[in-house]
Parts: sequence; C-alpha cells; structure tokens
Amino acid sequence: MSEFDLIRRLEEIICIGPRAGCPAPVVGIGDDGAVLTLPANTELVVTTDTLVEGVHFHSGTPARDLGYKALAVNLSDLASMGAEPAWFFLALTLAEADSDWLENFAQGMAELAEQTGIQLAGGDTTSGPLSMTITALGLVESGQSLKRSGAGAGELVVVSGTLGDAALALHTIDAGGIPDKISEAALNRPVPRVELGRQLPGLASSCIDISDGFLADLGHILKASGKGADIKLESLPRSASLDRLNESERIEMQTAGGDDYELCFTIPAERHSELKQIEKEIGIRLTVTGRISADPGLRCITSDGQFYHPGTRGYEHFSRSEDLSR
Amino acid sequence: MSEFDLIRRLEEIICIGPRAGCPAPVVGIGDDGAVLTLPANTELVVTTDTLVEGVHFHSGTPARDLGYKALAVNLSDLASMGAEPAWFFLALTLAEADSDWLENFAQGMAELAEQTGIQLAGGDTTSGPLSMTITALGLVESGQSLKRSGAGAGELVVVSGTLGDAALALHTIDAGGIPDKISEAALNRPVPRVELGRQLPGLASSCIDISDGFLADLGHILKASGKGADIKLESLPRSASLDRLNESERIEMQTAGGDDYELCFTIPAERHSELKQIEKEIGIRLTVTGRISADPGLRCITSDGQFYHPGTRGYEHFSRSEDLSR
Repeated sequence: MSEFDLIRRLEEIICIGPRAGCPAPVVGIGDDGAVLTLPANTELVVTTDTLVEGVHFHSGTPARDLGYKALAVNLSDLASMGAEPAWFFLALTLAEADSDWLENFAQGMAELAEQTGIQLAGGDTTSGPLSMTITALGLVESGQSLKRSGAGAGELVVVSGTLGDAALALHTIDAGGIPDKISEAALNRPVPRVELGRQLPGLASSCIDISDGFLADLGHILKASGKGADIKLESLPRSASLDRLNESERIEMQTAGGDDYELCFTIPAERHSELKQIEKEIGIRLTVTGRISADPGLRCITSDGQFYHPGTRGYEHFSRSEDLSR
Repeated sequence: MSEFDLIRRLEEIICIGPRAGCPAPVVGIGDDGAVLTLPANTELVVTTDTLVEGVHFHSGTPARDLGYKALAVNLSDLASMGAEPAWFFLALTLAEADSDWLENFAQGMAELAEQTGIQLAGGDTTSGPLSMTITALGLVESGQSLKRSGAGAGELVVVSGTLGDAALALHTIDAGGIPDKISEAALNRPVPRVELGRQLPGLASSCIDISDGFLADLGHILKASGKGADIKLESLPRSASLDRLNESERIEMQTAGGDDYELCFTIPAERHSELKQIEKEIGIRLTVTGRISADPGLRCITSDGQFYHPGTRGYEHFSRSEDLSR
C-alpha cells in the first residue's frame, strides 16, 4: 500500500459526516491545514496525547483496540473539560504500511468517532517506530469549561464508573496471565465519559479525568483549588474483577493504577440529588467518595478507620505520558 | 531531571507572553486541555506535523536546531494558508530526560516562537524513540484563508526564497561531506514565511508550502485547481550554493529536493507590481517561475528549450511525512 493509498483509506474509513452542533470544516483534509469555524458563543478546548508502543501499550495489542484507545484518551480529556467533541487530527507513525493493520486501526478509531460525533479533519502519516499523537478539539459554551481549580470546601468528590480495572489487566498481563473480560476491556477499550462531560458544566465546580491514578489526579484538583480532601477508600467504586484481590492490592490498583479514564469531579453537597438524575439518564455509575476540605492535604481512611499512606501516588516518573500541565 | 521538572522547564523556556491580535488562552498549560477564544470574524487554521529521528533528521542534529525546525515546519503550513500564528501544542517523545538536550531543544523552539508570536498552550511528554509532533493553530479573517484550489489560467506562479538548498545539504551529509553554511541553514533552520503569509490573503489565488519538492507541491495546486502550468526551470530561484552543480543535478535538487519550506502561490498577472512592493517591505525574494494554463499537465522547459521529464516528482513514497491531505 503506497502512502497516498494509506491516507485515502484512513480518510474513507474514519471520516464521518458533519452533524448538528458541530460544523463541517470550511477546509478539511486535502490542504496544508484545516480551516474551522466556531459557532457563536463557544470556546475551543484543545488537548493532545501520544501513545507509544512498548510504553503505553504492549506490542501485541490489536490494531483495532489501538485505534479506539488513541482517540478515547483524548476524548476523555475533552469530557473532563466539559467540551463537546468536534474535530481531531491524527499524527500516525508506522514502521511499515501494513494494509490489514491499518484497516483495523482505522475501524477502531472510526467506531468511537461515530459514537461521539468527532470528525477527522487532518493529520500526518510518517514512517518510524509505532506511535500515534492525536490532537482533539472540542467546543464549550463560553465561560462554561470545567477546570481543575474551583473545588470548594464541603463539596462532594464524585467518581464515575469503576477504578483499577485497567491496572489489574496490565498487572495480569505483565505477570504472564490472561486478564478477565472486564479488566481487559477497561485497558483496551476505555469508554470516554463524553456524555457525562456534556452534563457537568453548571453542576461540577472542578473536574479532571483519571489517567494517572485517582489520588494523583484528585491531588491535581486539590492543588489547583488550594484545598484538601477526606476520602473513604472503601467507597471507591470497583468492578467484580477486583473482588479477588486483598484490600491492600485493591486499594493500590484503585488509587494509583492509572489508565482509568473516568472523571473525578466536585459538586456542592446540596446538589447531590442531581447526580442520581444524571446516573439514571446516561446509565453511568456515579459514586461519592469523600469531601473537599479547607484543610490542605489528602487524607484517605481505610475500612478499619486507619489513615492510608500510599506507596506511590500515580505515575510521577518519566516512563509515562504527561500533559504539559502539572 | 524528573518528568515534572522537565515539563516546568519547557514551559519556562518556551512560553512567551500573549500579544496584540492573539489572545492569551482562557486556560493554558496546567489543565486537561487548553481553552481558547477566537477573535470575532476569524476562522481557525490547524495543521500538524511529526518529525522522527532517522527519518526526518539525522541522529546528530543539534537539539536547538530540532526545536526550531519542529516548530518551523508547522509555521510554514500556517503561512501557506495565510494564517497568523496563534497557539501550538507540543507532543514530545524522548528516550531519556537529558536536561542539556532539553534546554537546547526548548531554546531553539522559543527563539522561533518569539520571532513569530506563537504561544505554547499545551502538550504531552512521553518516553520512547525520539520524535515530536506539533499541532499549530492560526487565525485568519473569515473567508480569507489561502487554499490549493483557486489558481486561474494565465496567472503567474511565484516562489519565495530559493529552492534546493536543504536537499543539497542532505545530499552532502549523506555522501559523508560537510554542507556549506547556506545549505546547512536551509536544512536545519528553514525560515517559515510567516510574514509573507500575512501579506498574501487578497492577492494570491492559491498557495502551498514547498515541503515535498517544487514540482510535487505545484502539482497539488494544479490538481486542486483543475489546471496545468508551464514552468521555465532556468527561472527557479537558487542560492550560490547550487552554482557548483551541473544543470541536471541542480534541477533535481530544485524541483524534487523537498524540505524547502518556501511558499509557492499564484497571482493574477496584472498584479505583478504588488510582488515588488511586498519583496521590498519584507525583504524576501519572490520569483515568477511560470504561468498557470487551462491545459492540464505540468510542462517544464529547460534552458535549451527542451521539455524536462523529471525522474522523481517529490517524495511520494512511504519513507516521508505526509499530510492526510493528498
């Protein structure tokens, strides 16, 4: 497959049409740059994330899962800002132009693009060690974007979905085992909380997506907001996959595992009932795990009432991807 | 240097302040995404380009030149669309966090960011084989962006600067030699034609930046515009560095060398005098190299009046970077 065929094929598979609320590019794929018009009274949210073979995914990861996940991690960032997905740009580096691999990669990406309505508007393909960088653009009503700052004392700390599944899958694979379906799906097919992201502006006072691990990411909210928090570890939401672990292993996966792509956000305590309404509407579990405090620091209480002292607090070392942000 | 130190240092070095005409981000580095507001009556131009070690640059390339060039190739795309540089996002993959290397890389990038007024608004750093993807955002008055389509029969084909210098440098290095200063600068420090890009909306009917080679890129204009062209090869602008080559070598470098990052654009013949005015104002050589024709095809005439049949027409193979565009 020649380079031009490859690009044409990617375009054919991934491009979905424009839809209500997200204008088609004025100039799309096929020029030196895309030209985009923003609807009135909107702001642009931009996020970029790279996945590298051997660092963010194992070499054997199916191409279809990779195409899906590369887009998912960016959609998760848009969701955490309360933004509606609009357009994305794909920079794909491949060792060779294998048409089967590419077809599957594009299909995985197209599947999620269709589900969420984001349009491929441009990109770059090049040869080299396998990696992919996606830059995703979203739209948010002016002044309504969700930030890490803004959490207020007494507010509730809420987490979507369940935590620790992806970490369990990774741990299982690294130990030579085969992960169960739930944790494998969490690792390879994380569901970006796009619909939840649409619901949160006007309700959440702060928000972040959990990519580095719950405690590290909540820590970012606390730092940006100048607050502390008290967290009940037993309340952290978990799937049945984690039941077979002992408490210490489980807490480690849930608090520091990373790769969860759930949203962690804060809301005023008096608006708790609205959570139930959203849960019902969009069918995603929303769990209150603790409260924001005026006292600095992050205090985690175990099931027997002890303070928990984490061994690691998320991935702060250089072996992981990191936004130019913290 | 820890990852957080690395990010902080990048931010310190590269971040220039906001300036007139290009608003500071509403939310910049330090959240899950940047939040940006577009001035009234502007459209957004977005372009993304990846550079990979061993593919787009030699392993020994100085970090400072790399930082400069990674940004330059994106600014060149913005210029070719007639867009004012606004914000950029850096996805940097590094084998190790070497503080000297990083310092130099960031300084090269900051130098060009300051010259052109583009602001770093976010990004991602990760570990892996050395590569960098930049997504650059520019602003253009609504409806004024320059496209590849739009060239009209009888119009003049214009090229900025000189062609073939970067190709000569690459050829010299590949043959074990040391390139002269002019061609080395063209390879490692291409000057993106940002100021020219600002002048062209309202004058140029089509525009492209010459990254794949003059004939290949002019070919993109012709295809998008549904036209042909007649080009006098002897008129192609060249620096003194190419004088020592024979005509055949020279033509090959100038027409198919790639990596020139000059602009190729078309203007109505009756507006030729405006070129001289722009040349004078911004101090960049602008050369008329031929005319657009209603007859399809690209006809190149050598100095002795023969048709030139190119061996290669730019880099169409998979060993090069390619926009999702052609």
